[in-house]
Amino acid sequence: MRDETPDARRQTPHEPAAALFREVLSYADDNLVLAQRLSGWVASAPDLETDIALANIALDHLGVARALLAHAGEIEGRGRSEDDLAMLRSEREFTNLLLCELPNGDFAHTITRQFLFDAYQLCLWELLSAHSGATLAGVAAKAIMEARYHFRFSSSWVVRLGGGTDESHRRMETAIGDIWRFVDEMFEDDPNRRASWSRLIDPVLAEATLEKPAQVHQRRGGRQGIHTEHLGHLLAEMQSMARSYPGVAW
Amino acid sequence: MRDETPDARRQTPHEPAAALFREVLSYADDNLVLAQRLSGWVASAPDLETDIALANIALDHLGVARALLAHAGEIEGRGRSEDDLAMLRSEREFTNLLLCELPNGDFAHTITRQFLFDAYQLCLWELLSAHSGATLAGVAAKAIMEARYHFRFSSSWVVRLGGGTDESHRRMETAIGDIWRFVDEMFEDDPNRRASWSRLIDPVLAEATLEKPAQVHQRRGGRQGIHTEHLGHLLAEMQSMARSYPGVAW
Repeated sequence: MRDETPDARRQTPHEPAAALFREVLSYADDNLVLAQRLSGWVASAPDLETDIALANIALDHLGVARALLAHAGEIEGRGRSEDDLAMLRSEREFTNLLLCELPNGDFAHTITRQFLFDAYQLCLWELLSAHSGATLAGVAAKAIMEARYHFRFSSSWVVRLGGGTDESHRRMETAIGDIWRFVDEMFEDDPNRRASWSRLIDPVLAEATLEKPAQVHQRRGGRQGIHTEHLGHLLAEMQSMARSYPGVAW
Repeated sequence: MRDETPDARRQTPHEPAAALFREVLSYADDNLVLAQRLSGWVASAPDLETDIALANIALDHLGVARALLAHAGEIEGRGRSEDDLAMLRSEREFTNLLLCELPNGDFAHTITRQFLFDAYQLCLWELLSAHSGATLAGVAAKAIMEARYHFRFSSSWVVRLGGGTDESHRRMETAIGDIWRFVDEMFEDDPNRRASWSRLIDPVLAEATLEKPAQVHQRRGGRQGIHTEHLGHLLAEMQSMARSYPGVAW
């Protein structure tokens, strides 16, 4: 894992508020973008229980995004609301992880994306629940409860699919192979956190008889606003109404 | 309103269970199809609060659909689960109201569809919460609490858009004009219920300075399994995964 990339979000002493703004915003964007992706599964999952679970998870991410965007707006202090930040920023200004903007693919891809990200967020909220900022710590403390449930849900599917039929195992292998190149980006700020993350995912992958892919070329750039081609389409859908008729419904 | 159409779902003395099965199934289908439609708005609504509200409403409808489908399966007594009933029936076997399968259109269309249907379900759950079957009465008693919130949400948007700008008022007029021809179908079993429904919607429309359209040609057939062209696409999306890999994920 390369770590020499300068991190635009890392705090510098003379601008702590701006750095915190960018950090909070990037976590908000992860959740907002992922909620939009997950909503594509509502009433399209393999069964109704899974439908309802995915809809609940999408809603959790949307709730976290909203709380973080509101907090980012407060930190920035220029009067931008959570809606301004969600609806009126350009693709270049979104700093979500590339992982979160990946298309749903088949169910194995969606579950793999969720699984890797749930473990990441579980570690993140654990860390941030001890943050010196009370608002951020509060959001993290609530989000960690949700993330535990999300991770149990995605883990159980990883095990079920990985240990299921030849076809489901093969699809999980393909999904992990496709998605693994978006993993390093999660830890570019804090390589230490990767060890905690591995402790969460390794036993699940073992139980699912799935292996981590060999070293693959890693993609990154999301945290710096450089995105895959997928985010533009997602934002077009997400923002079209708010942008056409700013301020009021029409 | 024409009411001479024979109602396939009306109970006949010799087959009360079959009639109840069809009735419960049709209410389930309303909620299942509408949940799928509403999910299209998640993270695409005018603001985050509305996003979250629509996601919650979709989830409520999904929950009601699941409970009713499970109950329909019990009544039928042939071992079909809620998932079998959701995922393995053909378009011809779905008996949801045509209103529920209408595309989202613009936000005014979605709000109008929700508003008219919320008032309908509020009356329906009120009636069914006194049903002699304890399961159905229980589902209705829970659903009525949700429907009250749904109706407050959609009513407030009807008032806001109807009484908003010229553009928002014009869009609401168009939406009501387009959707009104799916209203009579809601009351073909029970014309009396229409009066209760009107008592709910009339004051809201008045406050929104919106008028009910003059008599328009009414569409119907949903309750008999005759649908608009839109349901086939919706079911294709909803059922594709469950149908490709029945029983397990793959």
